Amino acid sequence: MADNRPIGIFDSGLGGLTVVREIIKILPNEDLVYLGDTARVPYGTRSKETIIKFSFEDAEFLLTKNVKCIIIACNTASSVAASVLKKELDVPVFDVIGPALRDARMISGNGKIGMIGTRATVASGAYKDTFGIACPLLVPFIEEGEINSGALELVVKNYLKGFEKTKIKALILGCTHYPIIEELIRRVIGGGIKLVNPEKSVSIATKKYLIEHKMLSDKQGQGRRTYFVTDLTDRFKSVAEMFLGHSINGYLKKVIIG
Amino acid sequence: MADNRPIGIFDSGLGGLTVVREIIKILPNEDLVYLGDTARVPYGTRSKETIIKFSFEDAEFLLTKNVKCIIIACNTASSVAASVLKKELDVPVFDVIGPALRDARMISGNGKIGMIGTRATVASGAYKDTFGIACPLLVPFIEEGEINSGALELVVKNYLKGFEKTKIKALILGCTHYPIIEELIRRVIGGGIKLVNPEKSVSIATKKYLIEHKMLSDKQGQGRRTYFVTDLTDRFKSVAEMFLGHSINGYLKKVIIG
Repeated sequence: MADNRPIGIFDSGLGGLTVVREIIKILPNEDLVYLGDTARVPYGTRSKETIIKFSFEDAEFLLTKNVKCIIIACNTASSVAASVLKKELDVPVFDVIGPALRDARMISGNGKIGMIGTRATVASGAYKDTFGIACPLLVPFIEEGEINSGALELVVKNYLKGFEKTKIKALILGCTHYPIIEELIRRVIGGGIKLVNPEKSVSIATKKYLIEHKMLSDKQGQGRRTYFVTDLTDRFKSVAEMFLGHSINGYLKKVIIG
Repeated sequence: MADNRPIGIFDSGLGGLTVVREIIKILPNEDLVYLGDTARVPYGTRSKETIIKFSFEDAEFLLTKNVKCIIIACNTASSVAASVLKKELDVPVFDVIGPALRDARMISGNGKIGMIGTRATVASGAYKDTFGIACPLLVPFIEEGEINSGALELVVKNYLKGFEKTKIKALILGCTHYPIIEELIRRVIGGGIKLVNPEKSVSIATKKYLIEHKMLSDKQGQGRRTYFVTDLTDRFKSVAEMFLGHSINGYLKKVIIG
C-alpha cells in the first residue's frame, strides 16, 4: 500500500523552506507542495484571530493541490492555529512544536528547557514548560543576509543574556529562520547546552507517521517539488535559495489566496 | 466656502502616524481618518504589483469614510502607487515624496541630496536625482522600541558609511519611522548636513492646497480623529502611541479590508 499524493507544507514566508530541506533529506522521493504566504509575512506580530484566518487560507490552498498531509512549518502558526486546523481538516496535520518538545525533553532529561522565537510564539505558551525569550530582531537580520555582522552578535548576546539566571540544558530554536545562524547561537549560548531544531524533529515525526499508516509514496526517483508564494520578488528568490540551500530557479510560482 | 469632510491618511502600518502628528500641529481643527494596514505591514519588501493592489484597497476604504483628500503617508506606497492613485481617484491625492524633494532642493541649493529608506522606496527611484541607500533594518529596531541600543548605532553607522564618498548637503528621511531616531541619524551623519522630514513637507503642502482650493474646515475646536487598523494587538497600541506622541486608548478600531 502506498499514497503517492504530495506532502503539503506551508509557512508565513520562506523560513519554512528549512523544513523542506529536512524533508528532502529523509524522504527524497516524496512529492512536495510548498506555500509561502510572502504577501502577508510576517505572522509573528499579528493577532491570534488574524493568524488563524491566514493559516486556514494557506491550508485550504494546499488541499486544492490534493495533499495527503499538511506540515505547518511556521512556529507562529503552529502555536496559534495548529489545534484548530487539526480539528477542522480531513488530512493529518503536523506542527513544528510537539515533536521539538518531545526531542527537547529526551535530550534534557530532567533539566530545564529554553526556547527562543517570535513574540507571538513565546506569548502563545505553546512550547509548554519551557523558558521562552522573544527575539524579534533575528528574523530581519537573517532575511537581510546580515548574518555575520557585529550588530547581530550584539543583538543575540543581548537576547540570550536572559538565560544566564536559568540553568537550561537544551535550547529550542523556535523559529524556522534560526538554523541559519545556529553556529552563532551555539557560540554565544555555550556551556554545553544542546540545541533542538524543530525542522528536524517534525520531519522525522512526519516520516514515522507516514510509515506507520502506510502512506509513503512508492514512486521511484526524486520527488516533484512545487513552490508557491503569494508574492514574488527577485529578493524572495535569493532568500528562498539561502533557506533551501540550492537553486529553485523556475520552480517558484505566484498564487493569490485570501 | 469650507469643506468639513475629513482628511484621509493611510499607511502600510503605524509609521504614518508621524504624518498625523504633523497634520494635527498645523491643522488642529480638521477631522482626520487614518488607516494603518497592520495585517499586511510591511509593504517595503513586497512586489510593485502587490503594493499597488494594497494601496487601492486602502484608498477605497478611506473613500467610504467620505474623505475630501487622501495623504499617502507611506514612502513605499508613495513611490510605487501614487501616480496610479492620482489618476484613478476623484479626490486630491498627496504623497510624501514630491513635497520632500522640493524642500530638499531648496535647502541644498545646487548641492547633492542623499536619501535613506526601505529597499522598495530606494529601488523605485521615486526620489529623483538623490543618492539613495536602503536601510531595511531600521524599521524593525524602531518598531521594537530598541532605539537607544548599541546595536542600532552600529547598524546606522554601517548604512550611512555609504555617504562618505558622496558629499551631500541634505538627507531625506525617506521612511515614516525615521523621525523617531532623527537625533541618532543627525549625530552619525554629522558635518552640517540638513535632514529633511517628508512628514512635515507633505503636511505643509496639504495645508497650502486646502487653503488655495478653499477646502479647509470651518469647524471650531479640536478635530475628530479616527484611527482604523486592519489588525489590532496590544503591542500595536503602544507602538501607535510612540509614533503619535500621545495616548489613543479607545480610538483604535479594527476593520477588515482586501
